[in-house]
Amino acid sequence: MIEHPVFQTEPWCLRESELDLSVLPHSESLFALSNGHIGWRGNLDEGEPHGLPGTYLNGVYELRPLPYAEAGYGYPDSGETVINVTNGKLIRLLVDDEPFDVRYGRLVSHERTLDLRDGVLRRDAEWESPTGRSVRVRTTRVVSLTQRAVAAVCFEVEPVNGPARIVVQSELIANEELPAANEDPRTAAVLSSPLVGDLSEQYDGRVTMVHTVRHSKVRVGAAMEHLVQCPKDVLSKVMSTQDLGRFTVAALLEPGETLRLVKFVSYGWSTTRSLPALRDQVDAALSAVLQTGWEGLLAEQRTCLDEFWSRADVEIDGDPEIQQAVRFALFHLFQAGARAEQRAIAAKGLTGSGYDGHAFWDTESFVLQVLTYMAPDAVKHALSWRHSTLPAARDRAAQLGLAGAAFPWRTISGQECSGYWPAGTAAFHINADIADAVLRYLRATRDEDFARTAGLELLVSTARLWCSLGHFDGAGQFRIEGVTGPDEYSALADNNVYTNLMAQQNLQAAADAVTHDPEQARAFGVTPEEADHWRAAAKGMYVPYDETRGVHPQADGFTDHEFWDFENTGADQYPLLLHFPYFQLYRKQVIKQADLVLALHLRGDAFDARDKARDFEYCERLTVRDSSLSACSQAVVAAEVGHLRLAYDYLGEAALMDLANLEKNTADGLHLAALAGSWIALVAGFGGMRHREDGLLFAPRLPVGWDRLCFRLLLQGRVLTVEIKKGEATYTLDSGSAEPDRAERLEKLELRHYDHTFTLTPGEPMRAPIPDPVAHPAPQQPHGREPRRR
Amino acid sequence: MIEHPVFQTEPWCLRESELDLSVLPHSESLFALSNGHIGWRGNLDEGEPHGLPGTYLNGVYELRPLPYAEAGYGYPDSGETVINVTNGKLIRLLVDDEPFDVRYGRLVSHERTLDLRDGVLRRDAEWESPTGRSVRVRTTRVVSLTQRAVAAVCFEVEPVNGPARIVVQSELIANEELPAANEDPRTAAVLSSPLVGDLSEQYDGRVTMVHTVRHSKVRVGAAMEHLVQCPKDVLSKVMSTQDLGRFTVAALLEPGETLRLVKFVSYGWSTTRSLPALRDQVDAALSAVLQTGWEGLLAEQRTCLDEFWSRADVEIDGDPEIQQAVRFALFHLFQAGARAEQRAIAAKGLTGSGYDGHAFWDTESFVLQVLTYMAPDAVKHALSWRHSTLPAARDRAAQLGLAGAAFPWRTISGQECSGYWPAGTAAFHINADIADAVLRYLRATRDEDFARTAGLELLVSTARLWCSLGHFDGAGQFRIEGVTGPDEYSALADNNVYTNLMAQQNLQAAADAVTHDPEQARAFGVTPEEADHWRAAAKGMYVPYDETRGVHPQADGFTDHEFWDFENTGADQYPLLLHFPYFQLYRKQVIKQADLVLALHLRGDAFDARDKARDFEYCERLTVRDSSLSACSQAVVAAEVGHLRLAYDYLGEAALMDLANLEKNTADGLHLAALAGSWIALVAGFGGMRHREDGLLFAPRLPVGWDRLCFRLLLQGRVLTVEIKKGEATYTLDSGSAEPDRAERLEKLELRHYDHTFTLTPGEPMRAPIPDPVAHPAPQQPHGREPRRR
Repeated sequence: MIEHPVFQTEPWCLRESELDLSVLPHSESLFALSNGHIGWRGNLDEGEPHGLPGTYLNGVYELRPLPYAEAGYGYPDSGETVINVTNGKLIRLLVDDEPFDVRYGRLVSHERTLDLRDGVLRRDAEWESPTGRSVRVRTTRVVSLTQRAVAAVCFEVEPVNGPARIVVQSELIANEELPAANEDPRTAAVLSSPLVGDLSEQYDGRVTMVHTVRHSKVRVGAAMEHLVQCPKDVLSKVMSTQDLGRFTVAALLEPGETLRLVKFVSYGWSTTRSLPALRDQVDAALSAVLQTGWEGLLAEQRTCLDEFWSRADVEIDGDPEIQQAVRFALFHLFQAGARAEQRAIAAKGLTGSGYDGHAFWDTESFVLQVLTYMAPDAVKHALSWRHSTLPAARDRAAQLGLAGAAFPWRTISGQECSGYWPAGTAAFHINADIADAVLRYLRATRDEDFARTAGLELLVSTARLWCSLGHFDGAGQFRIEGVTGPDEYSALADNNVYTNLMAQQNLQAAADAVTHDPEQARAFGVTPEEADHWRAAAKGMYVPYDETRGVHPQADGFTDHEFWDFENTGADQYPLLLHFPYFQLYRKQVIKQADLVLALHLRGDAFDARDKARDFEYCERLTVRDSSLSACSQAVVAAEVGHLRLAYDYLGEAALMDLANLEKNTADGLHLAALAGSWIALVAGFGGMRHREDGLLFAPRLPVGWDRLCFRLLLQGRVLTVEIKKGEATYTLDSGSAEPDRAERLEKLELRHYDHTFTLTPGEPMRAPIPDPVAHPAPQQPHGREPRRR
Repeated sequence: MIEHPVFQTEPWCLRESELDLSVLPHSESLFALSNGHIGWRGNLDEGEPHGLPGTYLNGVYELRPLPYAEAGYGYPDSGETVINVTNGKLIRLLVDDEPFDVRYGRLVSHERTLDLRDGVLRRDAEWESPTGRSVRVRTTRVVSLTQRAVAAVCFEVEPVNGPARIVVQSELIANEELPAANEDPRTAAVLSSPLVGDLSEQYDGRVTMVHTVRHSKVRVGAAMEHLVQCPKDVLSKVMSTQDLGRFTVAALLEPGETLRLVKFVSYGWSTTRSLPALRDQVDAALSAVLQTGWEGLLAEQRTCLDEFWSRADVEIDGDPEIQQAVRFALFHLFQAGARAEQRAIAAKGLTGSGYDGHAFWDTESFVLQVLTYMAPDAVKHALSWRHSTLPAARDRAAQLGLAGAAFPWRTISGQECSGYWPAGTAAFHINADIADAVLRYLRATRDEDFARTAGLELLVSTARLWCSLGHFDGAGQFRIEGVTGPDEYSALADNNVYTNLMAQQNLQAAADAVTHDPEQARAFGVTPEEADHWRAAAKGMYVPYDETRGVHPQADGFTDHEFWDFENTGADQYPLLLHFPYFQLYRKQVIKQADLVLALHLRGDAFDARDKARDFEYCERLTVRDSSLSACSQAVVAAEVGHLRLAYDYLGEAALMDLANLEKNTADGLHLAALAGSWIALVAGFGGMRHREDGLLFAPRLPVGWDRLCFRLLLQGRVLTVEIKKGEATYTLDSGSAEPDRAERLEKLELRHYDHTFTLTPGEPMRAPIPDPVAHPAPQQPHGREPRRR
């Protein structure tokens, strides 16, 4: 089902068996390497041809003006956009003066493999130059998960059909020319050469370059050094100019003789540190990795990933494509968050420049939902990043006339970068989503230190926001009006069910947290009266219900609206937002993405089974899934209400979003939330896992045709393994230690399997029967928007 | 009450008794002359100092890019903006080599008078140059109401205290340097020199210049010629370059000797005609006015205005300020529409560049409401202009996925120029407002030809729009969702009462019209089934009502929203839109301008007296009047529901909006709708006039302290005079002819005075007693937003 035949289905890698330039932009995203700090797109080593050259550093951005035809109070006047920083992955090859370029000569063979356990991208090519000289090129690329500032390439070349004069040029290049991405000439001007050279120097074969981003004033350092192995004498040379560092090595090789070049690259950036400090930092990182060596670096990488998979792997018997897809997804999620360290995890990670490199609610609601149970440190860092942006969020709230903190809809640094407020600023649910991520993290880790500090402050700041956003009506109901929920085909609605329920949880949790820790509460200025007010707002939270139709409306009045004319909407008119005005979308019953359905998942405790079934069925008829965030939530609720086939279809859509390039824009970067969605669909959907304040719930069921689904959850230092087979599930709490540094580990775990509650102890598996599924008539989707059948 | 002491209260003119440069920008708008085709701001003859130099031609605009931080489907990508065209009013004076500049030397006296009956702007100044030479300067400026292409200035200068060498330079100048108005550097660039020279020539003392507006490609011609009278020999010279034509006359004068220069200027523009054709056109206009001569031109102007006042004048005994203000208003309304001839009447007429020179619903709902009863030809032309833009409106509707025509929220040429759709495109009520203006015009004139052609097509096209905008719900109610009503502090609401009721009238009237004229209906493709559908939609139109509070909500859910915190909103935080985000404004109960209250006025037939009183009182508590369109509607309904003092206060606000510069932006141009509002407040408010399908209603009452209010209405060729005195009203139908060309004239008029219906015949006045007003407790306004007491 991976659309293009060049991609192979294998359990532990993504293999591309030949090079088809039409999928190059797409494959650059799939083959991107990252550690959350550095991102290298899967560009060919030699730089060209390319879809989008991409080297990113998390947090490095340029400012660009945000223009408005008609300005308004509180509109941000400048935005942030990720930039392509100094490219250190470029290695050019000349064979008898012919540049190695796959567009010329003949590519005898070409294979690229992303190895999900080794954490490297391998390439193996045989190329015959236009003059008939054949060479074999093998490269291995790594972005280190253990040494945050480091990436490296091992480049090997050998002649095949006769002696060849080989020249390898390894470069550091700033201000690479990029394909035009934005039509606005002003933006293009700002971003065309964003790096201003501060320093470029070389000594002992090492090149160090420092630049400052023109308007944002972020300073970026990069350095490289090489190790060369060759059976013959080589000539090598190093040069550096402002925007170019180049290491050249030349040799005359016979067939069977290999020139091997290992290139180590280090990166660093800062908005505060001096030029010498930054230069020394990247130099030091380079020295450290030279001490580790290439083999050492690969070994570290493998060890790190072995540990990750031991607590993260999902095993599937019955669908090799989904098996591959979920591992691919988990690998990329780990890459995105592993070393982000107090920086955002963007919607596309560091795999492309889509969405300007911004982070949205995708992070907290989808990506962190997964990482919480396999890489909790990454979650802590991501939430600490949010916490670090509190000053900006408080300023924004004040500007909007609100209390507490209003986190930005889209951002890199923490400043609001949304230029269309009805689908930006008004989407206040992001604040409850952040609180939800905090609560989830605390439930999974019991990280008391975080709970007392950043966690509590995030809960308090968002609870304050909700109190100022909502109001009590005459009947004592707490209403939140004029906001936009997750569904971006509605906007500025009153009492969006998702928003109100998530705010309710936020308010209640904040009240509970300050009661639990009155000393810290005082430190944050919370009085008992304030906490009582949060409780009252949570208790009085208004959730609209349409008595006539017997369903929850997505928001007040939604079910009274005209239905979208799906019958007369052509397949080529999706996504609707590119073919219809917001005006029409907003006022009709059409749903871009799970909104009420996401509430059914995340706040399932607020609905009874009948409501869930009816609400889901109602939403299904209206949901067009023009967002990659939708399918996974639909899978989860479909599974819960008994539509297992449909859940499986949605699982497939979430899992293959990028591998099959379903939205045709994977070239801009991976959809991290959809990748997360594949795990969510499996674990919350087929596993039926819910992690509530009052405990951990499972309601496992297998898709038709599967023999086994097994997943793992890291909980307070132990791995809970859930193995689902036909008619039976087995729960095992690992007796070993998944987090070596952890002082206290979970010693028993209470969990619920369907209606049965039991206590699990390490090393003592529990078996539990799975009830037969009840067959339900399948709900309808909008004409032409049914998910592809698996 | 005209705020600045330099302005005098007089019945038939606006006199400025001295020159205070701090009010110069404001006075330039007040003293603007226009005929609806040409607009000359009241800039000083010598050009400097100035607030905003302004010479406008109705329909001449430049295109400018409309940028978006986040683009969306259907957003217009370029807008139109009025430009300052070739300035022909400039006349510089040098006295013994000292330029006449009021900032230097000493201004002994300075008076300017806008004469509302002569239709001229007079200036009389005595100035002593820095070297001590005094001169008297008298100028009279006219923009001809009878010769559409022509404006003229008579300039007289005489030495006072000794002989002086006088040089007068009379100019035509293109691409005048303007004060920076827009912060966007791209817009500024587009508009800095918008005129590209095509031709500049002179012969026999006449200068002709033709330019093309750079991007819009509108071609603009201007020409000038002079008559000189002087007791002494004069030397004269003419020159022309691409952007400058100059006629210079020099003489050595003794005290008592006057140099008199009459300058005739003609203008023309076209998007289609050739350069020679346009050149010849302005030359011909100049020849025509030379044949008429200066005195002839003034005589024509006076005759035209005498006719206007005979059918338009409003007389007030008891408030000289309001007396002056309403005549000032009517004069400017007439100027704006008199010769607009198939072009828009912009929100600021041709008095300034505010709102980019765009026309909004202000025209149909306010300006035409007045002109219908005194200058019906101007109304016919304005509606014909709308009709001429039907192709663009149909295209826009199609782009939005709607049927019929969607007229633009703001435009010059007919293209939508709104760059913020929630307060632009979504304000669909403009279409019903246009239909309302058509119906009003037809009621007043019985213009059968217009009814069959443009009128019918406008009704049909707008009815079709409403049918596609709304839908029937399960209960058979017709709902219109996601639109913005007149109140711009709410947006994208469901079932805005004003919109639904105006749409209802639109649909019903269209159905009636096609039934009345089935042949024409077929020509427009209307089937009986379609008309039945309009009728059904009108009949089923849903009008929300809040049973709990016993009022109509402005739209669904409005009365459930949180109240704006007026108590904690400072006086310096108004207008709110400059100090608070739309997000907060939209979701709270706060009203910028009459919305439901406007429905109470224009669709009073849909409400009973109790509803009107309660709805008005409810809205009063929330209405901040941050729009100049609001006070007059509040005056009308206040008078109807018995709050005469409050109505008087609102009348004062509407009437003095510009004279007293209440919104501090009269410098950008006059608020034509507020000017219209002064008449509306008097006639619909104190006169209680309503013109419904079923007849003409009056419910007269006098403000406290007035002895008499008398107004006139032109109805099918006759003038109805309504004279209101204490306790009694007199209705008289003129026996003469107000429209000489009219074939058929009204021979009897049925009207209602309170609950009494009677028939009026020409020359036979009817007297009717006025019931005593019932005292009501005054409603409250938001804290600090009470109208100023009169």
